[in-house]
Amino acid sequence: MSTVAAYAAPSAGAPLERTTIERRPVGEHDVQIEIKYAGICHSDIHQARGEWGNQIFPMVPGHEIAGVVTATGPGVTRFAVGDRVGVGCMVDSCRECENCRAGLEQYCLKGFVDTYNGIDRAGNPTYGGYSTHIVVDENFVLRIPDGLSLQEAAPLLCAGITTYSPLRHWNAGPGKRVAVVGLGGLGHMAVKIAHALGAEVTVLSQTLRKKDDGLKLGADHYHATGDPATFEQLAGRFDLLLCTVSARLDLDAYLGLLKTDGVLANVGAPEEPVSLNVFSLIFGRRSLAGSAIGGIAETQEMLDFCAEHGLGAEIELIRADQINEAWERVLNSDVRYRFVIDAATI
Amino acid sequence: MSTVAAYAAPSAGAPLERTTIERRPVGEHDVQIEIKYAGICHSDIHQARGEWGNQIFPMVPGHEIAGVVTATGPGVTRFAVGDRVGVGCMVDSCRECENCRAGLEQYCLKGFVDTYNGIDRAGNPTYGGYSTHIVVDENFVLRIPDGLSLQEAAPLLCAGITTYSPLRHWNAGPGKRVAVVGLGGLGHMAVKIAHALGAEVTVLSQTLRKKDDGLKLGADHYHATGDPATFEQLAGRFDLLLCTVSARLDLDAYLGLLKTDGVLANVGAPEEPVSLNVFSLIFGRRSLAGSAIGGIAETQEMLDFCAEHGLGAEIELIRADQINEAWERVLNSDVRYRFVIDAATI
Repeated sequence: MSTVAAYAAPSAGAPLERTTIERRPVGEHDVQIEIKYAGICHSDIHQARGEWGNQIFPMVPGHEIAGVVTATGPGVTRFAVGDRVGVGCMVDSCRECENCRAGLEQYCLKGFVDTYNGIDRAGNPTYGGYSTHIVVDENFVLRIPDGLSLQEAAPLLCAGITTYSPLRHWNAGPGKRVAVVGLGGLGHMAVKIAHALGAEVTVLSQTLRKKDDGLKLGADHYHATGDPATFEQLAGRFDLLLCTVSARLDLDAYLGLLKTDGVLANVGAPEEPVSLNVFSLIFGRRSLAGSAIGGIAETQEMLDFCAEHGLGAEIELIRADQINEAWERVLNSDVRYRFVIDAATI
Repeated sequence: MSTVAAYAAPSAGAPLERTTIERRPVGEHDVQIEIKYAGICHSDIHQARGEWGNQIFPMVPGHEIAGVVTATGPGVTRFAVGDRVGVGCMVDSCRECENCRAGLEQYCLKGFVDTYNGIDRAGNPTYGGYSTHIVVDENFVLRIPDGLSLQEAAPLLCAGITTYSPLRHWNAGPGKRVAVVGLGGLGHMAVKIAHALGAEVTVLSQTLRKKDDGLKLGADHYHATGDPATFEQLAGRFDLLLCTVSARLDLDAYLGLLKTDGVLANVGAPEEPVSLNVFSLIFGRRSLAGSAIGGIAETQEMLDFCAEHGLGAEIELIRADQINEAWERVLNSDVRYRFVIDAATI
């Protein structure tokens, strides 16, 4: 057991404060990581504010973690002290169910163990990346390739894999037209990755405010969803829409943008139910789908892919004492495109 | 031009009456068919009662047509007088768009021509199968194999293809668990076809009233959706749910019955919007989809498959003067499982 510094929400909705937490001793298969950078994900805010239920306080958010290995358990075979590593949204799963065996730990039938706001096998709460150190089973640790800096790699552990996985699953690539709905933390990575996969990429954003950015990130086209003409002009155009926003959309209008057999895949979701007309699916054999992060092996594949194509996240590096302010800016969509905490300032 | 007998709805919601209509002369590529049998589809009622908008009156319903060729145009190459043939929901399409070229005429980008309540290329209204004869371009005429009687083949032209196409598209077959929601005209064919394709088939019906029928039709299991325990017992069980009903369902509950990557495919649809929680899709990468009838080549494939496996529809043969009464019974789900009109009585 070791005592380490962290930023925690003491209760639902309370500002984060500097505190200390206990990390478990380095076990047989554990890797101890000195956290260098931690990304801020919108879901950190949802959970710390008690909006998703089942919160455990104090809560140390953060599931976009990049750092360096500082110790390894005797059974660790894949990592050594000094390795550059990352941890994403999961730190364990049952490892036995059909999905875990298929590399789909994110859909573990018993539920994976969240990096924070979860309960580990020993029955203890998990604490995330807004901290100086973390101890994680090596099977849930990723290698960060040399081609990526740790600070621009951190957001890939959630924003990268959450977009890479559905883009791959629904075959974004040459000859395919992909639209990314929303240009935020997830959306900006979706644009980079879809472009690198060879797809023709369109950004659909409320306004044209970030158009220059979108085109620089790799989009071929950029349209404002605030303009009704967009939905007429682009009707029946896309093979895949990747929706990265959690706003309630007019799903019938968005489904109308899909070609026959097109898929509207959601990685963001509003808390309230959405509504749609089933005929929007029947005409054109369209699908409304969802996707959650990605498996461990796929996350490594994503990191390797991003390194190969030079796809780091666009980040704004902040000190730990700026976290609360950064959260407000996230809620106002005032970030291009991911805040990353310099863990040396915790 | 020839004058033929038919049953028509003179206006929205009015009872059907015997009348006469004009059929076009047999053109270069046309086949004239003496209709022997016509199935009654629930959508006949929706349209004749003006529930789907865009109705043309008088309306002669019927898109489940089986008969015999009585004349052919000079350019017809695939059919001869005396051939046993069928006509389904489409009598034409643009034949030029991406979908038509791919054999997906049901998703014709310009809209296919409905067998009734449509407008043909010459600008005339189309009249359906509740009639003694019909003239159809040979490209939209199907061959009814010897292994199927005309009366049990008629419903296959809509109920058969509407279920066969999604079952094939989403890979119902050995090792797959398929649930059919609703055991009506479409549902009973879905059970037969899914069973013949080799899938493990479950019927989900409001009550166990038709359980014996379901098992005889080929279902392996039968559960009542009126019993909340069904949704606990079958959670995460199915690869594919084929929803054949137009009632508004608790979609979140039904999506919970799907395995990871499972699909809830709708071939029936309520007129009003449905609602669901997007997290029901995100957890397990599930899809909510829709499917409309099938293409012409696929419809022929379905007829051949049904003939090979002896899968005629279960029908109740009626006289034309029983149509209005039969429609009431359809609305009360009092038919096992398809009414078929004996066209000799029109």
